[in-house]
Amino acid sequence: MKDTICAISTPAGIGAIAMLRISGEQAFPIAAKLFSLKDFQKIPPQNARFAQIIDDGQVIDQVVVTKFASPRSYTGEDMVEISCHGSIYIQRKIMEMLVERGCRMAQPGEFTQRAFLNGKLDLPQAEAVADLIDSQSESTHKLAISQLKGTFSKKLHVLREQLVQLSSLLELELDFSEEEVEFANRDELTNLLAELRSEVEQLIRSFKIGNVLKTGIPVAIVGQPNVGKSTLLNALLQQDRAIVSPIPGTTRDTVEDTFNIDGTLFRFIDTAGIRQSDDTLESIGIERTYQAINQAAIILYMVDVTMTKPEDIRAEIQDLSEHLDLADKQLVVIANKIDELETMPEHFRDWHDLDILFISAKRKVNLGEVEERLRQFIQQHKVQDATLLTNERHYAVLLDIQAAIGRIEQGISGQIPTDLLAEDVRVALYNIGCLTGTVTTDELLDNIFGKFCIGK
Amino acid sequence: MKDTICAISTPAGIGAIAMLRISGEQAFPIAAKLFSLKDFQKIPPQNARFAQIIDDGQVIDQVVVTKFASPRSYTGEDMVEISCHGSIYIQRKIMEMLVERGCRMAQPGEFTQRAFLNGKLDLPQAEAVADLIDSQSESTHKLAISQLKGTFSKKLHVLREQLVQLSSLLELELDFSEEEVEFANRDELTNLLAELRSEVEQLIRSFKIGNVLKTGIPVAIVGQPNVGKSTLLNALLQQDRAIVSPIPGTTRDTVEDTFNIDGTLFRFIDTAGIRQSDDTLESIGIERTYQAINQAAIILYMVDVTMTKPEDIRAEIQDLSEHLDLADKQLVVIANKIDELETMPEHFRDWHDLDILFISAKRKVNLGEVEERLRQFIQQHKVQDATLLTNERHYAVLLDIQAAIGRIEQGISGQIPTDLLAEDVRVALYNIGCLTGTVTTDELLDNIFGKFCIGK
Repeated sequence: MKDTICAISTPAGIGAIAMLRISGEQAFPIAAKLFSLKDFQKIPPQNARFAQIIDDGQVIDQVVVTKFASPRSYTGEDMVEISCHGSIYIQRKIMEMLVERGCRMAQPGEFTQRAFLNGKLDLPQAEAVADLIDSQSESTHKLAISQLKGTFSKKLHVLREQLVQLSSLLELELDFSEEEVEFANRDELTNLLAELRSEVEQLIRSFKIGNVLKTGIPVAIVGQPNVGKSTLLNALLQQDRAIVSPIPGTTRDTVEDTFNIDGTLFRFIDTAGIRQSDDTLESIGIERTYQAINQAAIILYMVDVTMTKPEDIRAEIQDLSEHLDLADKQLVVIANKIDELETMPEHFRDWHDLDILFISAKRKVNLGEVEERLRQFIQQHKVQDATLLTNERHYAVLLDIQAAIGRIEQGISGQIPTDLLAEDVRVALYNIGCLTGTVTTDELLDNIFGKFCIGK
Repeated sequence: MKDTICAISTPAGIGAIAMLRISGEQAFPIAAKLFSLKDFQKIPPQNARFAQIIDDGQVIDQVVVTKFASPRSYTGEDMVEISCHGSIYIQRKIMEMLVERGCRMAQPGEFTQRAFLNGKLDLPQAEAVADLIDSQSESTHKLAISQLKGTFSKKLHVLREQLVQLSSLLELELDFSEEEVEFANRDELTNLLAELRSEVEQLIRSFKIGNVLKTGIPVAIVGQPNVGKSTLLNALLQQDRAIVSPIPGTTRDTVEDTFNIDGTLFRFIDTAGIRQSDDTLESIGIERTYQAINQAAIILYMVDVTMTKPEDIRAEIQDLSEHLDLADKQLVVIANKIDELETMPEHFRDWHDLDILFISAKRKVNLGEVEERLRQFIQQHKVQDATLLTNERHYAVLLDIQAAIGRIEQGISGQIPTDLLAEDVRVALYNIGCLTGTVTTDELLDNIFGKFCIGK
């Protein structure tokens, strides 16, 4: 932590401007050696100054330089930000000059790691910075911002306080173990654990939706061959593709088979291979396809309106429900190819007891209705200010905490000795510490910050 | 010019940090609408402040914002710089917010164009900004920095002053034309024109080396088949390739067949097809090859040391000189394959009157000597602080000025009427005006700034 680090913090490549950052004890004296400014050390912090970078008497660039004095900086250390012209040569040259003058090139995420180690951010907040930079949709952005604000951390803090309280009472019992006193009232303990369990399990449950929002809400288009699944898929994807970013230079990263409604990402699951005809139903392949469909939060169940009767649909849905857990999924029945109908056939009246959308994927009729159903899904699962877990690591640790709580509860009901109980509480406390960063190991930090981009 | 523009100024893509810039009369009030800061208007210029960008009650990002007040800014207008997290979503969102609040998205180079129109830069300086951003080697970078400092512009200014002086005297004569007086002494005029011509022609000549430095010094490797031309080419290229950039995120743009010595770019000319055996010398192809070689500033003339006698070399060089203008080229004779010699054969003594490098391209023996010759070329053509023309537009305009000077000189010697003479002087003045930007048209500006990147 004693060395001074530097990095190019702006995206790689050529641009009008690039920004370099320096952080560490020697940030000011090292930066001072770059500039024509004689009084660099005297510039007040947070003051942007025009300056020339000089190497060996040659002007390298005309830049804007800003100092940030510890602790009022991103990392909490002395920092210098240099906005230079964004040529490859200049970016590289200034980095070389900084290294020659005593800086070390920063590792990925090292600025944020220092911010964490200096207490500017807790661990979930630091992790949120990486999510924030990666976010490409409004939903993922919101989740990251919420985590960055510390919403999640606050909840964890409350959990930890409760556990610490529990632990201290148990440790007290251990001190007086020969006297067989019970400082920690077991009923109180049980209540506290129930409360804890409820909090932990709520967070664990929230991972389902949080993770889905982060990676895209999984949608499966299911139906027999030739009902128009691909046409619908392409039409939905195309509609989104047509929303070309109005901002030059930020061409969107077009991920195949994902699209965006109201800022939420949807992701199509590849269910290639489903054929619900009788002869393939028994095959092994079909089971695999059902597993794929089972990952979906939304199932668009498509039928060909010209060839299907209501009773067929009921039978097929019944069939689906035998293979899939439809309880927590949104099932939308879509009757396609209305363009091929001249008049509404008689039996259409019978459809009314089923919630069916009549569309033409080919002619793009009523596609807005399909999007409306997807939009409804967002509305239903809209998490106002509730904490949503999005991070795999947090999820894994919370499962560990849940298990520890289970063991403590079993211990209490089974009248096991206090020292074993206390140990389980310590395990739970340790895990929460890993979550918030109170407990850290080099390996944990490497894992977390190694995934960051350079310069953050 | 009245509207307020905004752009993402950092390279496109995801990064730790991105920077957005706003410039124009409404820059401060528009920016103020983005922030949580109540006293945005009261922040002193050049003060970097932490702020939250809020849209519809939602936090969009935590940023650092800096105001630059007119005229102390890059464009000369009020400007705001926002350093935000470099996610695609955030960059796009803030741009959208700016446009909604009254900004217009900037055209390529529009910030620099405003800087020019507001007198912060003259036209060659503005053009140097684009060159600076594009520069990938030390040489091109130095040329751009020199032009940015206004070295070139100052020379142009001196030229123009002299011409204006000339012109005013001639115009005075026109006022008194009926009295047949000569205010402008024709001998003085002739001297002034000679001085002007010398300056202009020096700049025109400098384009040759300036342009070559900008695009890479052209090098041709010439020799009979199997003398080892490709091996030498690869060895020279490889040596450069091995210098891997130490800066992650700035992987060098590897242009095929160019390499860098001491910061100067060399570029190999494709001379594929040269076979100086007698039967192909007469072919049409060979003439084309000589034309290609003729573009080279340096010719590496290779022979196979095991198969060549000094008299052969003399004959071949003689042959080359009949087809090429060797006067302004550097010819380096390279005797390859010394690794295949066990002892120095007798006739080697005769080589001493020729300046020959003995190398083994295969074993990489004495390649440093080859590079040393290339280095010598840089040294010989090293332009200390002399102005080097690098811009095609400047070159074309200077040729026009040269032509106008020619016409004026002819006019003086041919005793043509003062009004015709004055007209030619006006043409020359107009052209210099186009060069420095005193005279501009929308088309000219579009041409120049349209080539810039967005955000500069």
